[in-house]
Amino acid sequence: MTKTLNLGMIGYGFMGRAHSNAFRKVGHFFNLPYKINLKAACARNDAKVKAFADQWGYESTETDWRKLIERKDIDVIDICTPNNSHAEIALAAAAAGKMILCEKPLAMNGPEGLKMVEAVEKAGVANMVWYNYRRIPAVTLAKQLIDEGRLGRIFHYRAKFLQDWTINPDVPQGGAGTWRLDLAAAGSGVSGDLLAHCIDTALWLNGPLESITAMTETFVKERKHALTGKVEKVGIDDACQFIGKFDNGSLANFESTRYARGHKALYTFEVNGENASLFWDLHDLHRLQYFDHRDQGIVRGWRSIHVTDGDHPYMGNWWVPGLAIGYEHSFVHQVADFLEGVGKNQLAGPTFRDAYQTQLVLDAIIASSNQSSWVSVGK
Amino acid sequence: MTKTLNLGMIGYGFMGRAHSNAFRKVGHFFNLPYKINLKAACARNDAKVKAFADQWGYESTETDWRKLIERKDIDVIDICTPNNSHAEIALAAAAAGKMILCEKPLAMNGPEGLKMVEAVEKAGVANMVWYNYRRIPAVTLAKQLIDEGRLGRIFHYRAKFLQDWTINPDVPQGGAGTWRLDLAAAGSGVSGDLLAHCIDTALWLNGPLESITAMTETFVKERKHALTGKVEKVGIDDACQFIGKFDNGSLANFESTRYARGHKALYTFEVNGENASLFWDLHDLHRLQYFDHRDQGIVRGWRSIHVTDGDHPYMGNWWVPGLAIGYEHSFVHQVADFLEGVGKNQLAGPTFRDAYQTQLVLDAIIASSNQSSWVSVGK
Amino acid sequence: MTKTLNLGMIGYGFMGRAHSNAFRKVGHFFNLPYKINLKAACARNDAKVKAFADQWGYESTETDWRKLIERKDIDVIDICTPNNSHAEIALAAAAAGKMILCEKPLAMNGPEGLKMVEAVEKAGVANMVWYNYRRIPAVTLAKQLIDEGRLGRIFHYRAKFLQDWTINPDVPQGGAGTWRLDLAAAGSGVSGDLLAHCIDTALWLNGPLESITAMTETFVKERKHALTGKVEKVGIDDACQFIGKFDNGSLANFESTRYARGHKALYTFEVNGENASLFWDLHDLHRLQYFDHRDQGIVRGWRSIHVTDGDHPYMGNWWVPGLAIGYEHSFVHQVADFLEGVGKNQLAGPTFRDAYQTQLVLDAIIASSNQSSWVSVGK
Amino acid sequence: MTKTLNLGMIGYGFMGRAHSNAFRKVGHFFNLPYKINLKAACARNDAKVKAFADQWGYESTETDWRKLIERKDIDVIDICTPNNSHAEIALAAAAAGKMILCEKPLAMNGPEGLKMVEAVEKAGVANMVWYNYRRIPAVTLAKQLIDEGRLGRIFHYRAKFLQDWTINPDVPQGGAGTWRLDLAAAGSGVSGDLLAHCIDTALWLNGPLESITAMTETFVKERKHALTGKVEKVGIDDACQFIGKFDNGSLANFESTRYARGHKALYTFEVNGENASLFWDLHDLHRLQYFDHRDQGIVRGWRSIHVTDGDHPYMGNWWVPGLAIGYEHSFVHQVADFLEGVGKNQLAGPTFRDAYQTQLVLDAIIASSNQSSWVSVGK
Repeated sequence: MTKTLNLGMIGYGFMGRAHSNAFRKVGHFFNLPYKINLKAACARNDAKVKAFADQWGYESTETDWRKLIERKDIDVIDICTPNNSHAEIALAAAAAGKMILCEKPLAMNGPEGLKMVEAVEKAGVANMVWYNYRRIPAVTLAKQLIDEGRLGRIFHYRAKFLQDWTINPDVPQGGAGTWRLDLAAAGSGVSGDLLAHCIDTALWLNGPLESITAMTETFVKERKHALTGKVEKVGIDDACQFIGKFDNGSLANFESTRYARGHKALYTFEVNGENASLFWDLHDLHRLQYFDHRDQGIVRGWRSIHVTDGDHPYMGNWWVPGLAIGYEHSFVHQVADFLEGVGKNQLAGPTFRDAYQTQLVLDAIIASSNQSSWVSVGK
Repeated sequence: MTKTLNLGMIGYGFMGRAHSNAFRKVGHFFNLPYKINLKAACARNDAKVKAFADQWGYESTETDWRKLIERKDIDVIDICTPNNSHAEIALAAAAAGKMILCEKPLAMNGPEGLKMVEAVEKAGVANMVWYNYRRIPAVTLAKQLIDEGRLGRIFHYRAKFLQDWTINPDVPQGGAGTWRLDLAAAGSGVSGDLLAHCIDTALWLNGPLESITAMTETFVKERKHALTGKVEKVGIDDACQFIGKFDNGSLANFESTRYARGHKALYTFEVNGENASLFWDLHDLHRLQYFDHRDQGIVRGWRSIHVTDGDHPYMGNWWVPGLAIGYEHSFVHQVADFLEGVGKNQLAGPTFRDAYQTQLVLDAIIASSNQSSWVSVGK
Repeated sequence: MTKTLNLGMIGYGFMGRAHSNAFRKVGHFFNLPYKINLKAACARNDAKVKAFADQWGYESTETDWRKLIERKDIDVIDICTPNNSHAEIALAAAAAGKMILCEKPLAMNGPEGLKMVEAVEKAGVANMVWYNYRRIPAVTLAKQLIDEGRLGRIFHYRAKFLQDWTINPDVPQGGAGTWRLDLAAAGSGVSGDLLAHCIDTALWLNGPLESITAMTETFVKERKHALTGKVEKVGIDDACQFIGKFDNGSLANFESTRYARGHKALYTFEVNGENASLFWDLHDLHRLQYFDHRDQGIVRGWRSIHVTDGDHPYMGNWWVPGLAIGYEHSFVHQVADFLEGVGKNQLAGPTFRDAYQTQLVLDAIIASSNQSSWVSVGK
Repeated sequence: MTKTLNLGMIGYGFMGRAHSNAFRKVGHFFNLPYKINLKAACARNDAKVKAFADQWGYESTETDWRKLIERKDIDVIDICTPNNSHAEIALAAAAAGKMILCEKPLAMNGPEGLKMVEAVEKAGVANMVWYNYRRIPAVTLAKQLIDEGRLGRIFHYRAKFLQDWTINPDVPQGGAGTWRLDLAAAGSGVSGDLLAHCIDTALWLNGPLESITAMTETFVKERKHALTGKVEKVGIDDACQFIGKFDNGSLANFESTRYARGHKALYTFEVNGENASLFWDLHDLHRLQYFDHRDQGIVRGWRSIHVTDGDHPYMGNWWVPGLAIGYEHSFVHQVADFLEGVGKNQLAGPTFRDAYQTQLVLDAIIASSNQSSWVSVGK
């Protein structure tokens, strides 16, 4: 029999919508041991959180997240606030024995992330971080093919996340829609926002990074602050790239930027193995490019796999072959796996501890960039 | 203030799911004058319809569609049954003064379709047919570009719908998942199932067809019938194609088949105008290919438009640029437009009358194919 | 030991250059039993033919093709003149015992073509028609894969040749660069010019056509004639399409036009078989798209074969894998095969007789279009 | 009137063929002030160089390059030998007052390259290095678009050259076809062979590099030596990548490898500017991808420019729109520009001095990689 978990959502922005949609949809397409009940939405602005709750059918609202955490009728806390508040909320929620879903990146830095890991592990509560791209079916298929050993020894792993929405110097920093440009709220720029996704996928697909040399750049040095109204120095990184080595001996090449004209959200990765290679990009997220050297020579070529068949990951739960799903479904899959995991008492990744590994790579990027030198990635 | 329409769904198959999902989601993303309440689901098999109602949150169930139509608490009837029952249900629903949503194709043939048109128009009830592809944002954008006159005089319109799922002769005809191969239930094969979509879009984008010469083919002549268990002659068309002329003087080339190995659901269309051309395909439904001859010569080329920006049709209601939606969203958009239309007392297309035009083209195809001659398309 | 064949070229236009380049290059890349010596170039305009001969290193010139044919030092005649002169020249050349290379289409119509076939066969002279696209390596590879039986039973063959260069009504008909728009010189419009290529390839890959229903269209009804200076009725077809059936039971869909905005020379074909499918297009001529249903399901997809490896047809004679050749190389390959054929006394196709089959399809197109009815293709 | 330059070719390998083909073809397609006469071919193996001369029509042969340089009837020396002999030959040729064409990379390192630059400049002889990719029409078009200022401020330049032909550990090092794997002959691995091309194009398109941090990797540590027959340590780099900064403030990301399964010769570059972006790849060398942010929003997209029109660089000399040329034509264009330059007494690039700048970047790569630190690029 399906049991119910009561959820309290903190935040109502872009991710608040993406998660709410997932909670609403998941039970229509997946048969799960638990279902999510949207019990309460929480945000400081009372009118806005009420409108949000009304739109999505949350039963109640709160304006103080501490009160939400205190409520006995809440089983799961979903943290969708800016990065600088993740730790405080998560520590309180863990102390209150709540399950925790946290937006990425987990924390402002590694040490903060470690405290969060220790808190949830000590409390023994289910926990997960919303690195949603693992569950785009084409990406999950990539994981499956790698785990089956089809690629052989890996030589190269490269990933990029390219956007172009901050080229205009009139885009402000700080405030509701642009807190990601504010160092105080975001902790970093594209490294924490975009490259974090690339790193999470890479660690999952290709194992730990050993050492890197990184650089960051801030192309637009000053922007008006949306809250103060003043032109202030920009503290975040506009672009960030590093090269390095994975523990398995393969070479790493990673890049992220918000200054790549023509690319809206072009997250791509490519893995080159001894026997086969894989390529994926978010702009055509329903396809996986696959090259298998063991195909007969004259008919060898990159295969464009339209990942919409019933035997592709998650796709048996949706429509029929040829009919694509989109971005939002990665969140549905993550909720499905989380609830499956709770039912089996076996946490679906990425857990806080998994996401902490990504945080350590982000710390290494900042350190390498600041020192202009190679650094080892912490473990 | 948002008013509620109580909906009664007949059928629980693939389309029952697609529509239910749309009804459930639409209010989370669109602000509309009406909302849909899932009042009752109806199908002959009591256990199955109850399971369906439970999965999707319908308040009640019925096993006799006539009873459903009699219920006072139902405002809208959604017909998701095989083609041979559309007319009977629609006529009864119209007589009962219900709004009607009907799966495509509207009817088994033109005369039957005409009765349905007359019934809903006489009853004065809102009506719509689920030719959902009009509302893939890239397709809607194509409509917008054509209506703005960007293409100039049109020379060519070509469309294809290619699948490959019936190549295996062991696929049966008739029964739950394969009634589309049964002439009695479906009325035709790929012409009514697939080409109907191509025709609906074409009439919408490029106006009426004048005359055509068509051919059909049945590659696998006999299949086991899923209900009788006997090997029987196959009555449907496995493939169907025609060439002809539109009223505007442009040439038509249309093809549909379930024997095009490698294509799962490849609906494509291309329009070639004096000044510009357009191409779209369902396998990459989030893109529109656009060529504008007025671009400067040395940098002229087909533009691959990633139709995910806030100023693209419907996309302002979803995520952020670069993040794709999928097949299911076309139904959400259709519900949104239907409800807007009801609110403004101005029906969103395709209405029964619009869909009747498609039926007349289908009749012309059958006639031309049977007679091996050119035929004029009825008006 | 390599023997020499002295060649006399008639015409110096686009094809005169394409052939001359092939004759010049072939010996540098292929080891052949014969080599071509550019003995004489012939055209009515003395100054122009001398300039042409100088540019390409022809040893001598003529202004009367009859004189050229009479010359004892000429072994091979290459006919690169407008279509309406092919027959007369070829008949004379055959009578003089010369080998003949003739530009496509072979003749103005089937009966004329048949006379040419009979003439060369009676004279026992080597003969070939320049349907060069057979020898784009990707197209030759397609032939090889089909001949190996990889596709299984064929269901569909479709081909298109789309251009856009005559949309502008100011393009004249007749004269040096535009004789292809003049009915008297060209015999037909896109059917003989473009569709002829599609048909030649199709007959080669998929066997004879059985019956068709065709239509043609002339979008621009009047154009200035470049020679008379007067605005005259346009006699050619601007667009031409047909559907029909091959002898092997597969369906045919063919189209050609010079009014498809955005396409310069987009010759494409696709073959759908029971087990596998193929797609090729001239705009990316170095690639062959291949789908094999026998690939494992989860990694099945269209393979983009970069046809540049040493084991691909002809490619071992060029550069290294990854480095593409272009349009002109198809002519080099055709010369190489012609010379090989002469050496083995086994003619390389397409011979005049092969090209005559294409002529019969063109005749059927015209007849079907004129009568607005189905017609059988002559054999 | 066209004057003749007598050319002496040293080497007869892959590049000997590519250059000879260009010398043979250029006059058929370009009207130039000079023409090249293939006077002599030179290589140590008498039989092989005679066969080569016979194949390509060289008038004479030599087996000692010093003798070739001494010959009074030679105007131009073309150096197509392994990298470790470039300097010695070039210095001697310059001293003898010969024009010099030299294969890339110019030298084994910067200091050696500088001597060569000083020698040709002191001797006042025409000189050029065969970085042929500048003259693929799509690449030349990219240069034109950048020089017109269309991209605005440049933020990112990234380039890759990916191959996969040395993954097999049985490929030997040293010897005729594999000297590029032998450190003594090649001086480096992929950095000098592949990345050198990327760097030459980048310096041309985007100006000088300021500083970089690089890494190299040798995946297969030992290979049999083709000459000694013994298994020896591999000295070359199998893969090489660097990140860094250009003088104009844009970020650099460069990578080359022979271990990227699925890529035969995938040279790609992308430039992201404030207003527009460009992308090119060698596997589809006839296309340039162009994104212009100034296009109207709803129809904005990457344009795939089929660079085959008469107003595209070099293309007016070839066929008609839509008909592609290939790899070999870049060499033809380079010869054409070289001869034009000689005619105007204004050297076409890349000169020895231009190629020396690339050498300095290669030196910086080696230094940075050896020291695991950032280094400034010499000027």
